[in-house]
Amino acid sequence: MTIKVFGANGSTSTLRVLACLAEKDLDYEFVTVDMPNKEHKKPEYLSRNPFGQVPVLEDGDLKLFESRAITQYLAHTYADKGTDLIIKDPKKMAILAVWIEVESQKFDPAASKLAWELAYKPIFGMTTDDAIVDEYEKKLSEVLDVYESRLSHSKYLGGDSFTLADLHHLPNLKYLMGTNAKKLFDARPHVSAWAAEIQSRPAWIKAFTS
Amino acid sequence: MTIKVFGANGSTSTLRVLACLAEKDLDYEFVTVDMPNKEHKKPEYLSRNPFGQVPVLEDGDLKLFESRAITQYLAHTYADKGTDLIIKDPKKMAILAVWIEVESQKFDPAASKLAWELAYKPIFGMTTDDAIVDEYEKKLSEVLDVYESRLSHSKYLGGDSFTLADLHHLPNLKYLMGTNAKKLFDARPHVSAWAAEIQSRPAWIKAFTS
Repeated sequence: MTIKVFGANGSTSTLRVLACLAEKDLDYEFVTVDMPNKEHKKPEYLSRNPFGQVPVLEDGDLKLFESRAITQYLAHTYADKGTDLIIKDPKKMAILAVWIEVESQKFDPAASKLAWELAYKPIFGMTTDDAIVDEYEKKLSEVLDVYESRLSHSKYLGGDSFTLADLHHLPNLKYLMGTNAKKLFDARPHVSAWAAEIQSRPAWIKAFTS
Repeated sequence: MTIKVFGANGSTSTLRVLACLAEKDLDYEFVTVDMPNKEHKKPEYLSRNPFGQVPVLEDGDLKLFESRAITQYLAHTYADKGTDLIIKDPKKMAILAVWIEVESQKFDPAASKLAWELAYKPIFGMTTDDAIVDEYEKKLSEVLDVYESRLSHSKYLGGDSFTLADLHHLPNLKYLMGTNAKKLFDARPHVSAWAAEIQSRPAWIKAFTS
């Protein structure tokens, strides 16, 4: 049974799933969704994801969307394959779940907005809005201050090992590190070391070069 | 060992946790965080939640923040108490996890913004921004269109039974139903029936009247 990923180049959510598949050492078939021709808004694709977004993962008869639900599924279902991305101990798992939520609720809203303004808009020939950049750099800085403190006494965000809590950051990190927002990470030594280390993981390099 | 909740009146995130505790039929001690006097920004509270927000849950020596991480912890740790809010079957749980993410990534950003503009601002004597209301009513409508379709063939969002995927909506629903945004729910029969049913659950009524 082949795992299929329906995704698009340059989609951070797609990359999140590919990063997870690479860490779990799982083979998959990648199906490019033709977004310029609005394939993601056509009935066949909407039957996979009613929000008309990428990615979708199919594993046998199971169809899943929402990148963080897909990574959870992969981490639990293929627990014995590749890197263990969750933690068996229930209390440690509860702490890990907190940091998964922090990425989703705190880091991602600021990081995605900055990636859009600083990385994607220039590609599309659009003008970056400096006021929005200022506002969201401030928000991201507040999040990274908490990360700096957390990473001064925990090797990774979720605990002692690399887990989904770290992995979920990788796609936004990749885009932001090529922009002026890199300074926010560079200014914080523990954050900077963490970001460099998780970005150098072979599975991550494989994910975005495959 | 008593469960402690550090929270505040009128906080939707606090209510999310109280709703879960009520469904799980768990006793707890409620500690009001004195937000008008900035108790949530003082070192003692920041040691519980470095983001300085409510709620925090303490269960023995375990301290957790982020409401959706707390509800997950309660649902898993107290699986045999009260209402089962997760699903044992791994494939059905994967689908449930998708809809938990949908609430977090799609419903909440629109619903929270509307609740702020339409319910909270008037309480604080602030002026509602009609352009923001228009923008986010449109976003919420798109989400509710997907819900209407989902609920036409699934009794609850996450599957056949009431789960965390439904429960997480309750606090925003409570605030929005007292505003003009109620029309968005009323216009969709399956959404409207679902919203009415989950809001009439005794555990929910207990949660916000306790």
